[in-house]
Order: sequence, then structure tokens, then C-alpha cells
Amino acid sequence: MGLHQRIEEAIERVLAASTGAGPEGLGRAMRYAVTPGGARIRPTILLSVAAACGEDQPELTDAAAVALELIHCASLVHDDLPCFDDADLRRGKPSVHVAFSQPLAVLTGDALILKAFEVIAGASTGVEGRGLKLTAHLAMRSGAPHGICAGQGWESETEIDLTAYHKAKTGALFCAATQMGAIAAGQDPAPWEDLGSLIGEAFQVADDLRDALCSQEELGKPVGQDDLNGRPSAVAQYGLEGAARRLDDILAGAIASIPSCPGEAALAGLVRAYADRIVPNAVRALRPVPGE
Amino acid sequence: MGLHQRIEEAIERVLAASTGAGPEGLGRAMRYAVTPGGARIRPTILLSVAAACGEDQPELTDAAAVALELIHCASLVHDDLPCFDDADLRRGKPSVHVAFSQPLAVLTGDALILKAFEVIAGASTGVEGRGLKLTAHLAMRSGAPHGICAGQGWESETEIDLTAYHKAKTGALFCAATQMGAIAAGQDPAPWEDLGSLIGEAFQVADDLRDALCSQEELGKPVGQDDLNGRPSAVAQYGLEGAARRLDDILAGAIASIPSCPGEAALAGLVRAYADRIVPNAVRALRPVPGE
Repeated sequence: MGLHQRIEEAIERVLAASTGAGPEGLGRAMRYAVTPGGARIRPTILLSVAAACGEDQPELTDAAAVALELIHCASLVHDDLPCFDDADLRRGKPSVHVAFSQPLAVLTGDALILKAFEVIAGASTGVEGRGLKLTAHLAMRSGAPHGICAGQGWESETEIDLTAYHKAKTGALFCAATQMGAIAAGQDPAPWEDLGSLIGEAFQVADDLRDALCSQEELGKPVGQDDLNGRPSAVAQYGLEGAARRLDDILAGAIASIPSCPGEAALAGLVRAYADRIVPNAVRALRPVPGE
Repeated sequence: MGLHQRIEEAIERVLAASTGAGPEGLGRAMRYAVTPGGARIRPTILLSVAAACGEDQPELTDAAAVALELIHCASLVHDDLPCFDDADLRRGKPSVHVAFSQPLAVLTGDALILKAFEVIAGASTGVEGRGLKLTAHLAMRSGAPHGICAGQGWESETEIDLTAYHKAKTGALFCAATQMGAIAAGQDPAPWEDLGSLIGEAFQVADDLRDALCSQEELGKPVGQDDLNGRPSAVAQYGLEGAARRLDDILAGAIASIPSCPGEAALAGLVRAYADRIVPNAVRALRPVPGE
């Protein structure tokens, strides 16, 4: 079974067990927020690191991957709310508050966060130590002062600590992905922080590049000068080609940071495949093909 | 040290460790949402049940009590939002979205939920099994389909399952209080469900009575007919005196439901004191003094 199918099946098991009882609208909204999914990048990384670390508790690993994706989906539902991004669309369909209601969108986010911890606890019998480490880690990377809540919270400040902002807003759940993969496999998570952090940085730069190219092509705006929504951007800082070079450097650093382990080569392959996926096509034309 | 002081000190330790780093506004909003507190009824019940069960892990018990209160405070912050109750005041001061902003209110609720699980995990070293049971229990009683998120979610339904609604909306966190107290002390939580459930029911009926008396005295509306905000009410169902009798019956049932344990008598005393606190003064005049 491929990773993608494994993730979808694990998510489906959790949703099937969680809906049915309770208020019907909330149950439907929770399912709507989680399926059909996006690329499932974070749980894919988690499962890949767990495999590279010699995964021996597949049920716990599945639970960790699902929990991480539930938190990610919850953050999207809340970020889309009118008081934040006021986004009407998400993954090509109406966002949860548009399709259901604002109250149900707030509750859906809350309920998905809570479900994440229920799922981990439910899969930890016999491996309680790992279960609690996963719980602590997921909560820390999701909340405040170091998680994605803090990242979003920085946007309410008049002076932003940019490093802390990016680390929390984008990096935190990628660090959770690599480190929870290690924890689920019974390994020390510390050596896996850099990989998560660098993947998060790459994701951020790729996103900035996509925004800038979209501005250029679709909006006709000059590139490398404006700062969409007032947020800092790698393109504004380094220019388009500079940002593309920086993306290459970060991805090379990510691969170099992979700790020695049985699945090291496979994991490097995954990061390369992931890089191919996140680098906008228009950016490829900008940079020399490295080493080919 | 009294229970109240013990709870406040435990909450303060968590807040002190959680703020300082991260965005300043979110940190302040989290503290604002949690202090100064209300009656801290849920953590008081939790600590009392733990003591009655022969508490042997005070740090874990403190963590469970704080976690439960954080979830309760988070639910108040989200319930006060304009899309739900649109409440400008809470505990005599502006609600979080008024004092800070809607984005910070959403984030504060999210971050407090996450902090709850971080706190339990952080206190579970050496008692991992109990820590995971506390996690599972708190998540189940707070989320959906059986927790307070589901309770709130019922309000978005056209047809409400009244029993499920009350059980989830008010009862769930009282069940969490009694059962998590037992778990923290290493005991089976099952025999403690009835006590939590009955305290929750008493709380609901007392609340209905208070609403009805407030309507009569302050709003000049007839009592026992209207249904404030379209929500079901014990007063509408039984009338004022009937609801007062029902409250007595529920509280007697709660005391009778306390499982045999070393601290049984002390716990019964606590429920009686709690009853005195929640029963509106005007209701006392309505009922015969039982057995005195």
C-alpha cells in the first residue's frame, strides 16, 4: 500500500468512528474539512521518517500522522474565517464557514484539534511513553508560544519577530512531522528537527515564489517589490532568481541534514520528489540545472 | 493550602511558563481569558474526587485540574464570539474578542485547548498510563460527537436531541471533572460518571432557575412560559417550584451516587456546599427545608 492510500484509509477510519452520533451538521463539517485532502505533505513526511527510523508500531504511526493532518486541517478552517483571511474557497470548494456557517467552522476547528489528541491516546496502549511524547510534541508545535497559533498570533503584533514568525507559522508543523515520525518509531526526535525546519523554510520560499509569479502573470504587478498582504517575502528580500537559488540551497541543506539511519537514501529521494512538487514550473526555467 | 489557592497557583505556574516568548498580544489574551477566574468549580470537583480516591500523584492531579479549566475557559472565549452568543462581557469584564480582537479570541481558544494537552503530557513522566487516560478522557468530553463541541453543535441543528444536547453541552465537563479526578489518583473512572452527570444536570437546572427568576425580577416577563433564546429550560418544563424540587432531587441523587471510598463523606459535604452556592436565593424561599 502506498503512503497516500495508507494516510487516506487511516483518516477515513477516524472519521467513520467519530461521526454518526452527535449533531449531524458538525459531523459533516468535520468530514468536509478533512476530505478530500490536499497533498497530505505533513503526514507523508511523518510516515517516511518513521519508516526511515525502523517503524515498529504502525498503528501508533498512523495515529500520529492522522493527528498531525487533523491539526493542519483545523488551522486551515480557522485561518479561512472572515476575521482572519476571509477566504471563500479552499482546495477548490467553498470554505467551511461558507459551506456550513461561522459557528460550525469555529466548532469544526476545535473538534478537529481535540480529535487529534483522542486519536493518539487511543493508539498508545502498550506504548504509553511514545504516546505522551507525541502528545506533548504535537501540542507544543500547534499552540503558543512556539506553534502555529503563535505564528498566526504574530500577525496581530505591530512589530513582528520575522524569524519566530516563519518558524512558528510554517515551520512548526513540518518539525512536528519529522520529529513525530521519529518518536512514533521509538527514536530520539532531536536529530530530526533540522530536516523539518528546512522543509518548512523551503515550503515558505516556494510559496513566496508562487505568489510572486502569480502576481506577475495574473495581476500584472511588478515582481520583487510588493509584499502581498504586508507579509514578508523571500522574493522581496532576494529577488526572483535569488529566491530560486535560495530554495535550491535550502533543499540541499535539508537532504544533508537527514540523520544517519537505515532509510536515509529513501528519505532523501522523498525530499527531492517533494522539492519537484513544490517548485513552481516557471521557477525551473530561472535556474541552472544543478549537477546535470 | 485550600483547594482554591492550589488551583490558582497551578494555573499561574502554567501561564508563567507559557508566556514571555511568542507574540505578546496572544500571551496576554490567554492570561486574560483564564484569570481572574470564576468559581473554578470543575477543577475543584476534580481535586476533591482525586483526594477522595486517595490521591498519590499531586503534580498529575494539578495538571489534570488546570487542563480541565483551560478547556472550560477556551470554550467560554469561543462561545462569546459574535458568531455564537455575541457576548460583550464575561465575568464582569469585556470578553476576549472585545478586549483584544476576534482573531486573537479564536487563537486564544485554540491555544488554550492545546495548552491543556501539553500540561497533562508534561506532568505524566512515570505515570504515562494515567496521563494517556486523562488525555483521552479530556479530548472525548471536550470534542465531538460526545463533548462540549458537540453540545454547542446541537444548537446549529433544526431538530435537537435534548438529552444528548444537555449531556454534551453542560454535563460533559462535569463528567470529565469527576472521572479525571479518579484517573489522576489511579482509580477506575467508570463509577464516577453518575456523580459528574448529576452535578451537570443540577448546574443546568439551577441555571434555568436563575434565568427565569432574572426574567421575572429584572425583565418583568412571565415565568415558566418563555424559553430564552429558544433553548429548552427546566422551568418551562416543570414550572418554578417543580424545577426547584427537581434540583433538590438531583442533588440528593448526586450525593447518593458517590462511590464508596475513603473520602466519601468529605465529598458529600462538598456537593452540599456546591448546591448552596448554585441554588439562587430566591429559590430557597420556594421550597420546604428538607429534613430540618
